[in-house]
Amino acid sequence: MTRFFVEPEELQPDFLVLTGENAQHAKVLRLRNGENVLVCDGQGNECVCTVSDVSPDQISLVVQKRLASESEPQVQVSVYMAFPKGDKLEHVIQKATELGAYEIVAFPSSRCVSRPDDKSLKKKLERWQKIAASAAEQSGRGRIPQVVTVPSYRAALERAVQADLALLFYENEQSTTLKMALSQGEYHSVSLLTGPEGGLEVSEVEQAQTAGLKVCTLGKRILRCETAPLCALSAVMYDAGEF
Amino acid sequence: MTRFFVEPEELQPDFLVLTGENAQHAKVLRLRNGENVLVCDGQGNECVCTVSDVSPDQISLVVQKRLASESEPQVQVSVYMAFPKGDKLEHVIQKATELGAYEIVAFPSSRCVSRPDDKSLKKKLERWQKIAASAAEQSGRGRIPQVVTVPSYRAALERAVQADLALLFYENEQSTTLKMALSQGEYHSVSLLTGPEGGLEVSEVEQAQTAGLKVCTLGKRILRCETAPLCALSAVMYDAGEF
Repeated sequence: MTRFFVEPEELQPDFLVLTGENAQHAKVLRLRNGENVLVCDGQGNECVCTVSDVSPDQISLVVQKRLASESEPQVQVSVYMAFPKGDKLEHVIQKATELGAYEIVAFPSSRCVSRPDDKSLKKKLERWQKIAASAAEQSGRGRIPQVVTVPSYRAALERAVQADLALLFYENEQSTTLKMALSQGEYHSVSLLTGPEGGLEVSEVEQAQTAGLKVCTLGKRILRCETAPLCALSAVMYDAGEF
Repeated sequence: MTRFFVEPEELQPDFLVLTGENAQHAKVLRLRNGENVLVCDGQGNECVCTVSDVSPDQISLVVQKRLASESEPQVQVSVYMAFPKGDKLEHVIQKATELGAYEIVAFPSSRCVSRPDDKSLKKKLERWQKIAASAAEQSGRGRIPQVVTVPSYRAALERAVQADLALLFYENEQSTTLKMALSQGEYHSVSLLTGPEGGLEVSEVEQAQTAGLKVCTLGKRILRCETAPLCALSAVMYDAGEF
């Protein structure tokens, strides 16, 4: 069933109207009266709706039944990624959304080459959020992950440790595996933090440990900065029983 | 330590010479007499060597000690991927190499839009093998995964089932998870097969089951054709105790 995302306040109990980009998308799909579609509020609530009227700028829908999204994982995984070069963050946002991330948090660290300034950040955040929305739609998620940026490494650490489990992946860690870290008890929320192209500095890893993050390895091979978060996210979803 | 790959027959017991691209690379790195480097044969054997002479076209090395690579995973994972559109196969080759794949096998299936012809295939294979070599070098692997193509879906299935465990991931499978499939016993080699953009046809999934592959799900979200193999590979490496 085709899936449309609307703002939470638009998810009315009986009738719904698709406008703007959603109406355009519906036109491209040549939706007709009587067809069923899925409308989601991006926060885990969904409605099965039937098309009742198609006009050039809007599509009217009758709500058939409301349901809680079944495609959202039980575990809330926050992906913390140091600002990478080029379009790697966009790649990670798209893939992490497919893989079920709860949110993606980008932060600066010492060796980050790219640090968007405040002016360009607003535009970039809009673009990043659109990538998350589109990936959520394509992968059939009931929730659009929020893309967030924080102004400092310290702020990233303070935010990350609020999860039940906060992990940092470091290429020089050799003894503590992700499996060890995950087997220490029940967890409902996890933060996964990875560094930029040049890696995190030793002092940053120590700072994270002091803040309460656990330092783990992702194995004996050196992963690129865009591969590490997706590898860790896949493994956490697997460990949590998602597949 | 910088890592160079040479042909297996070049890995001599006492002395080694780097030529061609390796010599160029050494020049870019400004290697000097007395520095140590790692030389690998791409099949899991490595030598620690000391630079003894630098001339414009070749670098002479003295072998210090020979060791078996420690960065290769215990489990041999073969990634079977239906030919995707664009440069997605290149992306998967690079990432799967980092993540520790043993080999990458590309095959045609009914809904493949892109199927390289024999003429272009030879050139492409060369290019793909180079991507694997470069990713192996960067990620510190001791072995370069072989990139292989097979001429038919049937040939892919026949090859895949030779592993201890042969799994096919299908978006309409709901009951058998990867975790269930992996928990059925010890495994040393695993084949992971995923479809192209449009997915595999029902008849293809049935054909795979008849051939002996187990059909599994990667969770309730629909993954893109380039995301699925990397997600599955990450989870298998995690399950096998790699991290």
